[in-house]
Amino acid sequence: MGTRDEQLHLGAFIYYSGHHHYGWRHPESGAEGLFDFKFYKRLAQTAERGKFDMMFLADLLYVRGVEDAASGMLEPVQLLAALSTVTEKLGLTATVSTTYNEPYNVARKFASLDHLSEGRAGWNIVTSQLDVEAYNYGKDKHPEHGLRYEMAREFVEVVTRLWDTWEDDALIIDRKAGIFADGAKVKEVEYKGQWYSTKGALNVPRPPQGYPVLIQAGSSAPGQDFAAAFGEVIFTAQQSLEAAQAFYASVKGKLVANGRQADSIKIMPGLSPIIGATEAEAQQKYKELQDLIPSSVIVGALSTMLNFDLSGYPIDGELPDIPDPVEATNGMKSRVQLIMDMARKERLSIQDLGGRLIGARGHMQFVGTYGQLADFMQHWFQEYGCDGFNIMPPVLPGNLDEFVDHVVPILQQRGLFRKEYTGSTLREHLGLERPGLRHFQAGHERAAASAAPAAT
Amino acid sequence: MGTRDEQLHLGAFIYYSGHHHYGWRHPESGAEGLFDFKFYKRLAQTAERGKFDMMFLADLLYVRGVEDAASGMLEPVQLLAALSTVTEKLGLTATVSTTYNEPYNVARKFASLDHLSEGRAGWNIVTSQLDVEAYNYGKDKHPEHGLRYEMAREFVEVVTRLWDTWEDDALIIDRKAGIFADGAKVKEVEYKGQWYSTKGALNVPRPPQGYPVLIQAGSSAPGQDFAAAFGEVIFTAQQSLEAAQAFYASVKGKLVANGRQADSIKIMPGLSPIIGATEAEAQQKYKELQDLIPSSVIVGALSTMLNFDLSGYPIDGELPDIPDPVEATNGMKSRVQLIMDMARKERLSIQDLGGRLIGARGHMQFVGTYGQLADFMQHWFQEYGCDGFNIMPPVLPGNLDEFVDHVVPILQQRGLFRKEYTGSTLREHLGLERPGLRHFQAGHERAAASAAPAAT
Repeated sequence: MGTRDEQLHLGAFIYYSGHHHYGWRHPESGAEGLFDFKFYKRLAQTAERGKFDMMFLADLLYVRGVEDAASGMLEPVQLLAALSTVTEKLGLTATVSTTYNEPYNVARKFASLDHLSEGRAGWNIVTSQLDVEAYNYGKDKHPEHGLRYEMAREFVEVVTRLWDTWEDDALIIDRKAGIFADGAKVKEVEYKGQWYSTKGALNVPRPPQGYPVLIQAGSSAPGQDFAAAFGEVIFTAQQSLEAAQAFYASVKGKLVANGRQADSIKIMPGLSPIIGATEAEAQQKYKELQDLIPSSVIVGALSTMLNFDLSGYPIDGELPDIPDPVEATNGMKSRVQLIMDMARKERLSIQDLGGRLIGARGHMQFVGTYGQLADFMQHWFQEYGCDGFNIMPPVLPGNLDEFVDHVVPILQQRGLFRKEYTGSTLREHLGLERPGLRHFQAGHERAAASAAPAAT
Repeated sequence: MGTRDEQLHLGAFIYYSGHHHYGWRHPESGAEGLFDFKFYKRLAQTAERGKFDMMFLADLLYVRGVEDAASGMLEPVQLLAALSTVTEKLGLTATVSTTYNEPYNVARKFASLDHLSEGRAGWNIVTSQLDVEAYNYGKDKHPEHGLRYEMAREFVEVVTRLWDTWEDDALIIDRKAGIFADGAKVKEVEYKGQWYSTKGALNVPRPPQGYPVLIQAGSSAPGQDFAAAFGEVIFTAQQSLEAAQAFYASVKGKLVANGRQADSIKIMPGLSPIIGATEAEAQQKYKELQDLIPSSVIVGALSTMLNFDLSGYPIDGELPDIPDPVEATNGMKSRVQLIMDMARKERLSIQDLGGRLIGARGHMQFVGTYGQLADFMQHWFQEYGCDGFNIMPPVLPGNLDEFVDHVVPILQQRGLFRKEYTGSTLREHLGLERPGLRHFQAGHERAAASAAPAAT
């Protein structure tokens, strides 16, 4: 094994009452608490007890099938704002779509969270996936993949400019002189893009972290390019060390080509741990989870993921030839590629492939002992397959406690993970620099005009 | 005085470090805490100690002049989500604009807050005011007043339909049968309006209150019509009991004409208390506040409010004739009308008028003893000028403490205000019915289709 000076970074990815699609049916799931703050408070405090870098929340802008799946999701940034009051160090990160929001609102949302949490906010930038999301916003269809990334680039450009409109020391609050803020240090953006425009200053001072941490979750080629331009954390799905290493090298290479430091981005694959004190216990837990999956749904779910009707093929046979499956999807292209590779490499039957994918949506499921999981994580980390992991417990809240109680201590003993937080902000946890002002060098932007008192 | 069975309703309107435009300059203002959760936590807990129905937050989608005014504002619904964790009974209400948001996002925002707070959320529906707000969202100008209200009607129509997409008992969570929610009780909206369309179910179950309380803050004719259709609380600016009574009668009349109960809407004028143990102390406090206003800004501020340049007129003279000032404004038409009426009636000089308006933006400032303020409130309430008040302390946090410590006990002794909360939700505090399902009777909306598991 190689050695690395740094330590692992860990995210606690909270998704319904567990990542396993049918995990809510597990006797120990907290499904009844999904719309209750107490459920999330316990999870956040557990993650903080485990010294995680951050909690990570997904977001879906539609109702996934309500009958068999846990559905509905509190607005994640509000939830994090509430959680900021019951945690002290834990990073608080959430997914917000660039496709169905306004840049000014998103810039403000994360600036506000960064102030409320005193520098613990992060934004997982996504472009959304499905036509059903478009319908909710009065659109006929979801924009196509390449276009969404073009739009997202502009969106993030506008948002980061807005975060730069207040200099760090703009606030003066001189009662005697009657100066609240230094007008010369509050600038207006003037940005006219193809998709987004803005002219004005953000209505929240610069976030404590400069910019909240920018997380990116697309692993396709446009996704990687986007990450190389803006990303500071990449959340990715990887099923083998070789593929993870190739992805790692590719992204870090693109970073350097973009003039950025290789360590200015942290690569964190998803990892769903199904673990126990013994291998037998872990296998038993895996079986319990798989038994929760109705066999009738496997073919349909896999067909949807691949955008190809598999219902006419034998369930115990291998995947048939599918013409251009990556090309055909308008969703997560890299995920489809990964599924196809996995099916070919392991020669899995439709049933086994579908069963595995339903469990963790294409992310790595690890079945083994606490020590074996620590070995696995150490190996991937030391062999430069990743900089850490986004931990995806199959059943919540219990499986997060289990990871914190049994796996974190092993990682800590090996010197692979912090025993105490040494910093206060998410950037400090992740070893990321606080960005200085990046915009307003060109001089074409001007100080914000004084506006009159508004009535309310 | 007349008598009324009900009791007063009180809002604690939190606005920067005080409502007085220059209140931040006061030695006791908490201006340094404006972006710090602790400042708001103290205020919310004070309001709850005072048994207020609700805390009320404004929102401005731009930076008001940064040099002389407190500027910048945390996103208010996130702030309320955080405050929901440190309060138990207090209603939590915030302003969100219909002009610069998507209905699906707003429906979700308040549904989430209502879940997090277990039924304490309220939405103050506004349409925003200024072109500088439009610029932040890449628009050339703010839509005109009538159009904004037309758009707002559709917006609220869509939002309330979305709140009805999950029936109250849609969640089943039957692990054994594998049924998370009853698909027949999760419906899709299909709404095609002139301005907004949506097709789908909200991604959050029905709010605990059915609908979060709908607050409306426009007092113009279109504003009143809007309130009569949707509003449950009206926040208004009134400067005399006669005008307040006329407004009260007009709104309640429109309600009845719309087939609603007269008590299904609570009318709460703004009231900025400048109070002390003696009249002399109150007058001294008023003088201290007025001395904070630079005389140079009065003419400019009043000119902006009236959209008419007053700089050529003598500052100690009366207001000149202004052609069609209400017609000319695209902001808060009712507020301009009120200013003109006030100037004519009291024959105020430009200086005195401007000075008074800067203090509380056209809302009533009351200067007197604790007991005199209680008398004033009782009189307006019992004479049907209002159902309560939105209290606007000139300097925060201190003036809220003062009101809670000295005025609330008098109101309680007189039986005019609750000594303890008797309910848990904001609707219960306000005496408003919980709405049943209002939509989906027509049968043209259908059950939400089952969607496949999404990758993340």
